[in-house]
Amino acid sequence: MVVPRLIERKRDGGTLTGDEWRELITRFTAGQVPDYQMAALAMAVFYRGLAPDELSALTDAMLGSGDRLHFKGEARPRVDKHSTGGVGDKTSLLLAPMLAACGVVVPMMSGRGLGHTGGTLDKLEAIPGFRTGLSLAQTEQQAREIGLAMIGQTAEIAPADGKLYALRDVTATVESIPLISASIMSKKLAEGLTGLVLDVKIGSGAFLPEPERALDLARTMIALGTARGCPTVALITAMDRPLGVACGNALEVVESIAGLRGEGPADLMAVTFALGVEMLLLAGLDSDAAAARRRLEGVIASGAALDRFRQMVAAQGGDDAVVDHPDRLPTAPVRVDVLAERAGVVAQVEPRALGRAIIELGGGRREVTDAVLPDVGLEVQAKPGHTVQRGDRLAVIHARSRDAADAVVATVRAAIRIGDTLPDILPLVAWRVTSAGASRYGDS
Amino acid sequence: MVVPRLIERKRDGGTLTGDEWRELITRFTAGQVPDYQMAALAMAVFYRGLAPDELSALTDAMLGSGDRLHFKGEARPRVDKHSTGGVGDKTSLLLAPMLAACGVVVPMMSGRGLGHTGGTLDKLEAIPGFRTGLSLAQTEQQAREIGLAMIGQTAEIAPADGKLYALRDVTATVESIPLISASIMSKKLAEGLTGLVLDVKIGSGAFLPEPERALDLARTMIALGTARGCPTVALITAMDRPLGVACGNALEVVESIAGLRGEGPADLMAVTFALGVEMLLLAGLDSDAAAARRRLEGVIASGAALDRFRQMVAAQGGDDAVVDHPDRLPTAPVRVDVLAERAGVVAQVEPRALGRAIIELGGGRREVTDAVLPDVGLEVQAKPGHTVQRGDRLAVIHARSRDAADAVVATVRAAIRIGDTLPDILPLVAWRVTSAGASRYGDS
Repeated sequence: MVVPRLIERKRDGGTLTGDEWRELITRFTAGQVPDYQMAALAMAVFYRGLAPDELSALTDAMLGSGDRLHFKGEARPRVDKHSTGGVGDKTSLLLAPMLAACGVVVPMMSGRGLGHTGGTLDKLEAIPGFRTGLSLAQTEQQAREIGLAMIGQTAEIAPADGKLYALRDVTATVESIPLISASIMSKKLAEGLTGLVLDVKIGSGAFLPEPERALDLARTMIALGTARGCPTVALITAMDRPLGVACGNALEVVESIAGLRGEGPADLMAVTFALGVEMLLLAGLDSDAAAARRRLEGVIASGAALDRFRQMVAAQGGDDAVVDHPDRLPTAPVRVDVLAERAGVVAQVEPRALGRAIIELGGGRREVTDAVLPDVGLEVQAKPGHTVQRGDRLAVIHARSRDAADAVVATVRAAIRIGDTLPDILPLVAWRVTSAGASRYGDS
Repeated sequence: MVVPRLIERKRDGGTLTGDEWRELITRFTAGQVPDYQMAALAMAVFYRGLAPDELSALTDAMLGSGDRLHFKGEARPRVDKHSTGGVGDKTSLLLAPMLAACGVVVPMMSGRGLGHTGGTLDKLEAIPGFRTGLSLAQTEQQAREIGLAMIGQTAEIAPADGKLYALRDVTATVESIPLISASIMSKKLAEGLTGLVLDVKIGSGAFLPEPERALDLARTMIALGTARGCPTVALITAMDRPLGVACGNALEVVESIAGLRGEGPADLMAVTFALGVEMLLLAGLDSDAAAARRRLEGVIASGAALDRFRQMVAAQGGDDAVVDHPDRLPTAPVRVDVLAERAGVVAQVEPRALGRAIIELGGGRREVTDAVLPDVGLEVQAKPGHTVQRGDRLAVIHARSRDAADAVVATVRAAIRIGDTLPDILPLVAWRVTSAGASRYGDS
């Protein structure tokens, strides 16, 4: 195998064979193909894409580079959810316990925040004592016992993806639909799932803002999952504004607990239920959306979902008293209100800018190696379409100091634009995508 | 400077500032920008190209990374020639002494063969004792004294280019017109020239077979040279068949010496004179092509050009007796004729396949680290358009053993295709390109 010839072929629009991808990934993982060759190849893939067979081979090679969950003899369905990331999106914290309470096993592997988007692991770690670094064996055991485990990517799973992703991150080759798909699916397929629901965000705060590209990513991942015995469905959801009110690690845990009590913001609950319905349908526990929805409402009303959350926190070393006393979570010492400077209609609440403000406050990461503060963040009460009077509260900044809060006031204010007419906003759930095709959400 | 952001900008079709290119090259040369980032950037440049200001900054940064020839107080014109490479192209071996004999200083820096194309350094080193590894100080002194020096790229000249080229070579990012242009011109501009002639090949055996791309490369390099006080002119010449008869290191030296005696093959001499005329015009020694041509014929007829060649061989440690006794050059022990299997018209003599046969015989390189044999190669008597009878000799294989010769007979035979009608071939010199534009050769 002469690597420059493989790069050249891809560069010029050709395809590599499955064997070539497999050998390439094996040798790359073993350190026998240098980073500079893989970086050049990744950039060529950025421009040229991957044929379906190439994508399959790459995904399987990365999956095969590591270990996986097996769930031998486990009869219950196992369903996970993956989101492409956003601001204020804490649906994972609600869905895992809700689905577990319904009898679905949820072995959920999540990531950390980077750039303007938050990460499930950072949120969970805002709970004192909570450990996300479980081994695969511990994860499987816990998921069998209490129906859910929420962990970070371990070195045991898809190490080839870990190495390739780190390289892509520093070579501007992240934003490639086939490479994103292979990266996500190689990890998700290692969870031993019977079904997977994807939440692909669109809008200004999304990784892929345009619906066409988001649909493309969804279709690509659905094809990969479905062909590998993991039926996969995607919802295309709105990230042109934050989801819910709380944005920031501990703040989002508080809002998640409220959601599990049936007291979450309407938009957060709507997306959570929509995703949860798809998870239940994939699990085969319900055959129609209305029944699935009722089941989800039931586990919230009964407190069963909140109980599962409490059990998980305890099982993973966290202080489970936070569930009944969210004030035990870290709290920022300074709160500063951001008030409307004029009357009008909220025209835009720009998630990317708000995400930058959270980074500025210390609650997010510029670089993967940055530490994050659990307590800081924003509560963003303003939603596009709200009518506001001068002096109304739009958001609350939670900061470590008055200076830190003052430093982001202008950013937060600029992110919440007040106009005179009702804005165009994206439907909360825009599309539903299955292996059969895409349809407007609610049409099918 | 955040390198991934620079890569991303180029990837998405934007431009880097001159300062960004300068800092990038400085830091890359110092080992502070890792190869994998430069490889990804080079691939992005492959697809996106470089704006004129970017190309200038990159070229200047690579030029400025090393030392250069100065020729302080040297009043004579200094002109070099650069070819994009081909099979049987030994014009450098003729032109350097011819121009020196005319009173032009030729400080010629050349490369080694790679792939199907031969390299001037390998040919010269077929002369016993010949050294191409002169320092810049030695080169300048010799060029002042005898009017010419023929050397390899030293570590003193454009080390940034050396490092970047090595990386491009293993990441399939060589074939980028702006990167090729910056690479060539950063080295040529270090020679302290007053003029430069480019021989840009087209046709199946050329690095860039299509005339449009060759013209683009020529225009790009001409703009770079001209803007930097080095007037540059290009001829676009044919590499759809080998140039001359001899293909292989020592064989080409023999043919070059014959050419310097006025006994070279017609096609070789035509291209040599065409290039030499441009060199003399740039040097300002003649003001029209006819006068320049007569001057070149004069230095061959008088033996002055051959004398310069002899002086250079001696000055660079070579056995100058080869000039009068070419049989002192290394000779392969086995010669095998390739005969026509049918009567007809030679329809094609494919240089790429012949170049591969030479590599097979040991006379060329697959990898830069390969050693080459001086004595092996091909004499290709067949030219497109020749009428041949069955049994006529098409070529002679010069090999180390009968087995080695037999192993390439089929390749050589397949490369020399015999048909029934006169083939379309490229004009030996197709275009002349100056900073004023391109015109069909002979039209201006």
